[in-house]
Amino acid sequence: MKTILEAQSTPRQDGFWMPGEYEPQTRIWMLWPNRPDNWRNGAKPAQQAFAEIARAIAQFEPVIIGAKPVDYAAARYLLGDEDNIKVIEMEADDSWIRDCGPTFVINATGAVRAVHWHFNAWGGLVDGLYFPWDKDALVGVKVADLADVDRYRPESFILEGGSIHADGEGTLLTTEMCLLSEGRNPDLTRAEIEGYLSEYLGIDKVIWIKDGIDPEETNGHVDDVACFVAPGEVACIWTEDPDHPFYEVSQQTYAQLSETTDARGRLLKVHKLCVTKEPIYMTAEQVEAIDLVEGTIPRTTEDPCITSYMNFLIVNGGVIVPQYDDPHDSLALDQIQAMFPNRKIVGVQSREVVFGGGNIHCITQQQPAPR
Amino acid sequence: MKTILEAQSTPRQDGFWMPGEYEPQTRIWMLWPNRPDNWRNGAKPAQQAFAEIARAIAQFEPVIIGAKPVDYAAARYLLGDEDNIKVIEMEADDSWIRDCGPTFVINATGAVRAVHWHFNAWGGLVDGLYFPWDKDALVGVKVADLADVDRYRPESFILEGGSIHADGEGTLLTTEMCLLSEGRNPDLTRAEIEGYLSEYLGIDKVIWIKDGIDPEETNGHVDDVACFVAPGEVACIWTEDPDHPFYEVSQQTYAQLSETTDARGRLLKVHKLCVTKEPIYMTAEQVEAIDLVEGTIPRTTEDPCITSYMNFLIVNGGVIVPQYDDPHDSLALDQIQAMFPNRKIVGVQSREVVFGGGNIHCITQQQPAPR
Repeated sequence: MKTILEAQSTPRQDGFWMPGEYEPQTRIWMLWPNRPDNWRNGAKPAQQAFAEIARAIAQFEPVIIGAKPVDYAAARYLLGDEDNIKVIEMEADDSWIRDCGPTFVINATGAVRAVHWHFNAWGGLVDGLYFPWDKDALVGVKVADLADVDRYRPESFILEGGSIHADGEGTLLTTEMCLLSEGRNPDLTRAEIEGYLSEYLGIDKVIWIKDGIDPEETNGHVDDVACFVAPGEVACIWTEDPDHPFYEVSQQTYAQLSETTDARGRLLKVHKLCVTKEPIYMTAEQVEAIDLVEGTIPRTTEDPCITSYMNFLIVNGGVIVPQYDDPHDSLALDQIQAMFPNRKIVGVQSREVVFGGGNIHCITQQQPAPR
Repeated sequence: MKTILEAQSTPRQDGFWMPGEYEPQTRIWMLWPNRPDNWRNGAKPAQQAFAEIARAIAQFEPVIIGAKPVDYAAARYLLGDEDNIKVIEMEADDSWIRDCGPTFVINATGAVRAVHWHFNAWGGLVDGLYFPWDKDALVGVKVADLADVDRYRPESFILEGGSIHADGEGTLLTTEMCLLSEGRNPDLTRAEIEGYLSEYLGIDKVIWIKDGIDPEETNGHVDDVACFVAPGEVACIWTEDPDHPFYEVSQQTYAQLSETTDARGRLLKVHKLCVTKEPIYMTAEQVEAIDLVEGTIPRTTEDPCITSYMNFLIVNGGVIVPQYDDPHDSLALDQIQAMFPNRKIVGVQSREVVFGGGNIHCITQQQPAPR
């Protein structure tokens, strides 16, 4: 495999850009959860949830799941003979391939390449979530190699896939809370960060949402708050309940997006997506089933879980949507169906993934199809 | 990935057979050496030798090298950006993919599948070379999955790829010393073993050579003694020096093969291939640089190394041949060139591989191209 280093070129220079998630895909990449200091009960309930999510995706397109060597045999036995699911060995520090994996870019003439960002576990030594993260940092190489695609790599730019959404037509959604955080690229100005997004993703306009809903975990990844559902159209979390923990961010983001134009000058159409009726909390029993180790932030029964319906994954002909056994589950499905009238909407219980700090979008990474 | 179990079908039933090594190939699979109780100096000299062999093969066709997770980053950095070489993660107990990996079969209409044998480290608890071998036993699954091919698996038949050579036209070469050994399939008769070879490799006639040259290690794998160089033509090790440790086997095998017909009734044409002029021994320093652990057989300075030139690998347009800094090195290259007048013959130093107990053919596995 040949690596294209940043010194040689960038995607923009070579005519590549990040497509929208709603564009045709080749496959979805996942990583199998394992670490008992993040997932309760030795990650066994999470593994079942990941398996259900993989099966839901596999109705629409192939899934490759990278399992840590210690889990490989069991994961392969559980899932590896199912249609459209392949389990392979892949070391990683955890299972958030949206963030530690590569971002794929395409060009107009049938090529797909990968951008391998630098990764520091959501904040490095400033406010990262675990240490070390060296195995996560290699996932971009492994996925690009296995996908047989060439790879770009900026010299030192830190970015997670969950902190960006692109429309495939030059516009990118992100949050100031994350991209301007002290633990990412503190020496870069906003303009310099936009320069990286331009060069590596072909972006002409960055829409800077102010905050996300999980300041303590990912520093407010956009993929819990808003996303593109089509060029010129975004979805935004929405609640009118002032007591809901996501109320302020939802109001503020909706107001901002409603007045925003994209790279092509279109005023965005904004779809409202509900939040859960009630905040969801972990029980004492659930919290206690997570190993306590030096250096990780213990979960509590007091912090509301980050149960956004926004963290869905768009696949070929479908959308895989988090469900929580909440009264608003079906409302969320209906609202997402209205955004994607031509796709099949599949709800999957993802509470166990939320307990680990993410959701369906966080544990998946789409590989776009060549044009 | 779907698995075709033996209960459902066999290659012969589905019209598949093992092609000759000289038929077109898609790629070569390898595993990266690691275990310090088998390879001197933490396997570092062996890794350099494997790298040279991989580079030699990559002149002709793609190579995928599976590295243990602990070695992945270094191996990827060393080789992974070279043309035609891909380094991926793959757990294994050692690096003998010829033996623990799958045997590929083809059909007449463009399909390739894999046969995943049972593996017990060359003799299991009777006279196997290490324990456990559970990671090796999964290599066949991993390679078949990564190659995107369906997989056959007999219920309980133990076989290593190094113990067989096929002509692609219904004939198989093997040794009694290995296939009838106590540590493989002691409950199967010779006829039952032939039945497995027939069903899983499409074999009509098995040529049973009596002995190999390494009774203590692989129990006499055929790939150090003889191979097919074309349908109807075999190579056989040959020495007229009665003091050479391989003298008896070479004389006996040559005499037998010269009187043998293949599955199509052709009397075999037998090419002589020299052995090293002098036996090669490990030095005390080399032996002492191998970790001693419970359960493995220590190497010594008294046992001649298994330095056969026969353990070459045929690739698309080339043959990769062991070299030992022996006076017969160039004679071996000339003899092999005469067997393969249309291929480029490339000699590679493989002494370090021999110190580990095998050679170029033992550490490689060809994936044939579809017809």
